[in-house]
Amino acid sequence: MEENHKTPQNVTVLGLGAMGSALAKAFLKAGHRTTVWNRSADKAVPLVEKGAVAAATVSEAVAASELVVICVLNYEILEKIVKPVADELQGKTLVSLTNDTPAKARQMASWAQAEGIDYLDGSVLVPVPEVGQPDALLLYSGPRHIFDKYFPVLRALGGKSTYLGEDPGHAALYDIAMMNIFYTSLTGVLHSYALLNAEGERAEEFLPFGRQVLALAGSFLENFAKSADKKHYPGDLDNITMEAAGIAHIVHASRDAGINVSIPEAVKGAFDRAVKAGFGANGMPGAIEGIRAPEKN
Amino acid sequence: MEENHKTPQNVTVLGLGAMGSALAKAFLKAGHRTTVWNRSADKAVPLVEKGAVAAATVSEAVAASELVVICVLNYEILEKIVKPVADELQGKTLVSLTNDTPAKARQMASWAQAEGIDYLDGSVLVPVPEVGQPDALLLYSGPRHIFDKYFPVLRALGGKSTYLGEDPGHAALYDIAMMNIFYTSLTGVLHSYALLNAEGERAEEFLPFGRQVLALAGSFLENFAKSADKKHYPGDLDNITMEAAGIAHIVHASRDAGINVSIPEAVKGAFDRAVKAGFGANGMPGAIEGIRAPEKN
Ligand SMILES: NC(=O)c1ccc[n+]([C@@H]2O[C@H](COP(=O)([O-])OP(=O)(O)OC[C@H]3O[C@@H](n4cnc5c(N)ncnc54)[C@H](OP(=O)(O)O)[C@@H]3O)[C@@H](O)[C@H]2O)c1
Ligand SMILES: NC(=O)c1ccc[n+]([C@@H]2O[C@H](COP(=O)([O-])OP(=O)(O)OC[C@H]3O[C@@H](n4cnc5c(N)ncnc54)[C@H](OP(=O)(O)O)[C@@H]3O)[C@@H](O)[C@H]2O)c1
Repeated sequence: MEENHKTPQNVTVLGLGAMGSALAKAFLKAGHRTTVWNRSADKAVPLVEKGAVAAATVSEAVAASELVVICVLNYEILEKIVKPVADELQGKTLVSLTNDTPAKARQMASWAQAEGIDYLDGSVLVPVPEVGQPDALLLYSGPRHIFDKYFPVLRALGGKSTYLGEDPGHAALYDIAMMNIFYTSLTGVLHSYALLNAEGERAEEFLPFGRQVLALAGSFLENFAKSADKKHYPGDLDNITMEAAGIAHIVHASRDAGINVSIPEAVKGAFDRAVKAGFGANGMPGAIEGIRAPEKN
Repeated sequence: MEENHKTPQNVTVLGLGAMGSALAKAFLKAGHRTTVWNRSADKAVPLVEKGAVAAATVSEAVAASELVVICVLNYEILEKIVKPVADELQGKTLVSLTNDTPAKARQMASWAQAEGIDYLDGSVLVPVPEVGQPDALLLYSGPRHIFDKYFPVLRALGGKSTYLGEDPGHAALYDIAMMNIFYTSLTGVLHSYALLNAEGERAEEFLPFGRQVLALAGSFLENFAKSADKKHYPGDLDNITMEAAGIAHIVHASRDAGINVSIPEAVKGAFDRAVKAGFGANGMPGAIEGIRAPEKN
């Protein structure tokens, strides 16, 4: 293993947006012979300066390596790029680091299997500047032997390159679950900043309070997870009816300040549906019962 | 000061829900002579066992102390309780630890001033079990001399009892901004747990990943605050168009799993409105431009 990961390998990166470029840079930094391709060819220039080979076509890029990594905006675009070169990919390994749904990942895996292409579905869980760092988390799922075979190359992308199992949808599921927490909590933060700014306050002054309350929220992750799994929501220290009233104040204060109320209204919706479903006297994790069912109200 | 805070004072607590009871307990623990009242009288029983005096009426409760703390569900109820005893409150200090909007807090302050009642508006920013602890955060705003006068008593409720300034709406504003981050992020967490459960996965297994991504979100609080204040959203490492596509995957995956999609749809709404307003090539904090204006879409 130790020897192996020092051996330079051939790797191709398709898609050189902010993330694809960061992946290519990390492969180059680890000493791998890196071939790159992007629809807009100019994005290859800074990588070529770092030692990459720019391929003029997708076929040429695929021909250069046994391991082909693709990172574009979504699977629709991914399919448009790889389906025309299915024959050339046969017997090779395709790794998608493009974000999409578990269903799409499973579809891609079926397609790849039918075409005789080894396929791993992965997700990058860190922002661009952290790609390649020892702490950078990437998730993969698909055939174990494919992950094991290419782990020595893939780990150049992040020290926490983690295999989640054979179900090709697993990495996308965890990615979605994580991205949802990321985007929802930061959009909540932006909502609070918008409210403060609208009231003539600086967000930066509020920062210590924002930090403290996000840390407080974090302290509930474990209890909420246990509650969710067991569907057990004791209401001795707080109750969803009281919380729905508190969230209504957020909606009103936001409206008073003249900003958009969609975010707190959606949060309130989950609590209101939980109350309606009979969980009003339960504790806060019981609000999950307002999310489990698809009904809007 | 050191002497002063050891001196037992008379304090009255109106409202003995989960939070009001915790406040009364903290006053008792600090040695203050505590009078309590609640609409449903039975909730006073455990406090009387700890040394509180139960008042039969609001008037009786108000008569017992110069300092009256009220903690009920909202200001509508608060007003119904205190307005009939305005005369008896004259010359005394009323502290509301009831959550509501900044506008409501300012209205209450005006009413109190007209009635000759000293008034502080406050918020408890910690859950029940943390009331009275050295780390417990409570925020107050209103006349500085009133806060200074009663700080030796009020600090029994939490070691981080913080004065925010003369504007009586300030504590409520910070409270709303903090509660919004708390509820939005934890509802996001519950959404992810609902998604995982719907896909047959245990939330507890996902816990280390949830923790990691919430910490990652936390690392952006400062940059986002600076961006919000300066309305400056550089898009060199990420862009809102890419992020809106990522959030669309959360909506689709949630729909595929048969759970409610209101939360990720509201998040997507903010990003979509930002794109529509011309911020598509900006970085993520630019999504605040989809929140600043009241339009829904
Ligand atoms: N940036 C991040 O912080 C981050 C973090 C984690 C995960 N990700 C994921 O990484 C993936 C890529 O994101 P990114 O930040 O690199 O996005 P980006 O900077 O917007 O780049 C988009 C990429 O997709 C290509 N593309 C778009 N439309 C195309 C089309 N019709 N045909 C061919 N190529 C097309 C672009 O090519 P052109 O250059 O020719 O337009 C470019 O290579 C996404 O799935 C994203 O969710 C990103
Ligand atoms: N619990 C927490 O974790 C927490 C944390 C921070 C802040 N807070 C804030 O603390 C405040 C109280 O919350 P809580 O947890 O104590 O709520 P709670 O346990 O539901 O108690 C509600 C209180 O309001 C009273 N009340 C309700 N309707 C009334 C009416 N029509 N007339 C007279 N009294 C009425 C109740 O009296 P009865 O007993 O007679 O119903 C009880 O004293 C809220 O503003 C909340 O946002 C709570």
